[in-house]
Amino acid sequence: MDINLKRLAQELNLSISTVSRALQDSHEVGAATKKRVLELAQKLNYQPNPYASSLRKQQSKTIAVVIPEVANNFFALAINGIEAIAQEKGYHVLIYLTHEDPEKEIAIARHLQSGRVDGIVMSVSSQTKNTDHLVALYNKQIPIVFFDRVCDEIDTAKVTTDDYESGFKATEHLIEAHCKRIAYLQISQNLSIGKKRMQGYIDAINKYAIPFDGNLIMTCENDNNENYNVIKQLLTTDPSIDGIFASVEKLAINSYHACNDLGLAIPEQIKIIGFSNLATASLLSPSLTTITQPAFDIGKEAATLLFNGLNKYNTLPVNEKIVLRSTLIKRHSTFSQE
Amino acid sequence: MDINLKRLAQELNLSISTVSRALQDSHEVGAATKKRVLELAQKLNYQPNPYASSLRKQQSKTIAVVIPEVANNFFALAINGIEAIAQEKGYHVLIYLTHEDPEKEIAIARHLQSGRVDGIVMSVSSQTKNTDHLVALYNKQIPIVFFDRVCDEIDTAKVTTDDYESGFKATEHLIEAHCKRIAYLQISQNLSIGKKRMQGYIDAINKYAIPFDGNLIMTCENDNNENYNVIKQLLTTDPSIDGIFASVEKLAINSYHACNDLGLAIPEQIKIIGFSNLATASLLSPSLTTITQPAFDIGKEAATLLFNGLNKYNTLPVNEKIVLRSTLIKRHSTFSQE
Repeated sequence: MDINLKRLAQELNLSISTVSRALQDSHEVGAATKKRVLELAQKLNYQPNPYASSLRKQQSKTIAVVIPEVANNFFALAINGIEAIAQEKGYHVLIYLTHEDPEKEIAIARHLQSGRVDGIVMSVSSQTKNTDHLVALYNKQIPIVFFDRVCDEIDTAKVTTDDYESGFKATEHLIEAHCKRIAYLQISQNLSIGKKRMQGYIDAINKYAIPFDGNLIMTCENDNNENYNVIKQLLTTDPSIDGIFASVEKLAINSYHACNDLGLAIPEQIKIIGFSNLATASLLSPSLTTITQPAFDIGKEAATLLFNGLNKYNTLPVNEKIVLRSTLIKRHSTFSQE
Repeated sequence: MDINLKRLAQELNLSISTVSRALQDSHEVGAATKKRVLELAQKLNYQPNPYASSLRKQQSKTIAVVIPEVANNFFALAINGIEAIAQEKGYHVLIYLTHEDPEKEIAIARHLQSGRVDGIVMSVSSQTKNTDHLVALYNKQIPIVFFDRVCDEIDTAKVTTDDYESGFKATEHLIEAHCKRIAYLQISQNLSIGKKRMQGYIDAINKYAIPFDGNLIMTCENDNNENYNVIKQLLTTDPSIDGIFASVEKLAINSYHACNDLGLAIPEQIKIIGFSNLATASLLSPSLTTITQPAFDIGKEAATLLFNGLNKYNTLPVNEKIVLRSTLIKRHSTFSQE
């Protein structure tokens, strides 16, 4: 009888991740449950991950990195971190780009279901609302670790940064620089990391008794020209805006262009802070204050969690959650003379 | 009898590319040669590219993009161009990074020899001296198209920019801005595109009767910190240097950091021009004058040439050479008051 992790979970009325952890002898699962799982696994002749096993026979020795784009320094650095670990382990790394397009993401997920890689490290597209294609990968027991933009519906290993705290810290920094009307720019309302960053923004303005105004929350699209226009429109419509918090790198750059073209002086008339790993942040005019994510380390951690799983009896990674801290780097774009 | 393109070429005492072109009914091959090739191909029951054929049976529908790095806007944009065409054709794109490391490039080439993709679009690592691993791919009849950093030893399709003219134009622009001692920064002496850019530099200074000084040619490594130090050293040792021509993007950024830290005012004391597709070039302090390559179009052309081959009877691309023009964008880093 051919039985997989999902079947085992169904028969035991447990979650897949509990069964997976039990098979890995995780301390998170009680002894009684562990015993039940192991007994049934033996009785039904459970075979760990048939996909990874068949691939190992073919010596795939390859992992996939699925990310939205590479014209973004965070992802470029994260890739380097992932590759550093993969190289140690003797694995090849294939990079797949979704370009923030759910259709492309679905096509890639289908392609990966066929088992051409031993595991996946992934950051979800900002436009993805339905995650059935990712759940399907998980149910096929393809080992997957999420980083930065995680999929809440799947209980696997995840590496993120302290998004809520960073959102709070960035907003508080603008308030301390005397900003009273702070726009919050994001590219999506779907991502959990975006929600956390925005919650940090909301809690910071509440703490300092600044009234919340939904018009200051701007959800941009995946097109730089359009974003530039949307930001210009926002700043023209509401000249009282004196601070911008760009929750992704490219929106900070779009904001610079918009302010330059509107003749708004940074930081005198408007202050800007952005989540960014730009190599040129300190060379911009003015230099850009950033929340800088430990992108390289995030990539390294995600790959390490994946390989920990790949090296064990059961190849699914433990659903460990790692949170690395981002850093506020103060530069001239938020400089206050007072 | 099993016969491939290489065998066919050997029996006919012709080059592989001539045989390939003859089978594709190219106008570049004379009628008599074409006849000889087609007759022998029929007689020996020649089967076009066994790798691509077997892959098509497996529905690989995948091409590989092999590039040095993604933390470089030229490559990030070129990938987007390649993916635009691949998507039209219904192909997946896998990205492999060499990190400018010949060992990694050799490992990737070996991995690709097994035939897991239908074709390859590639830009060679700057540190690659021996290209046997690429010739081996070519001899296995894996369709390959080079872009930007091409492999001179292989007679296949190639897409580049007008490197000589751009090198000349960049240097001439600095001379017209009254620079008399222009440093030329490069990352490698192996790449043919680097040699062409440098020849443009040399011919421009000769044209304007500026004496050539080998000490002004700086070959940097693949490490940003080291490059920063090397440039700082150069500018400290020779304070008469009043112009920098960075033949790759990151060396322009390293030069900005070095000048800032040495207190050298750009453009008053030293002028800088760089090959670059930086999204922030116009936002730098001062804005950076660039030679901007049509990166997206280069990627599109390279992918188009590959798919032209993949769609024909014989899957090797014709050895077409396409040269797209780069643009000089004058900004403040080379501004001259006179």
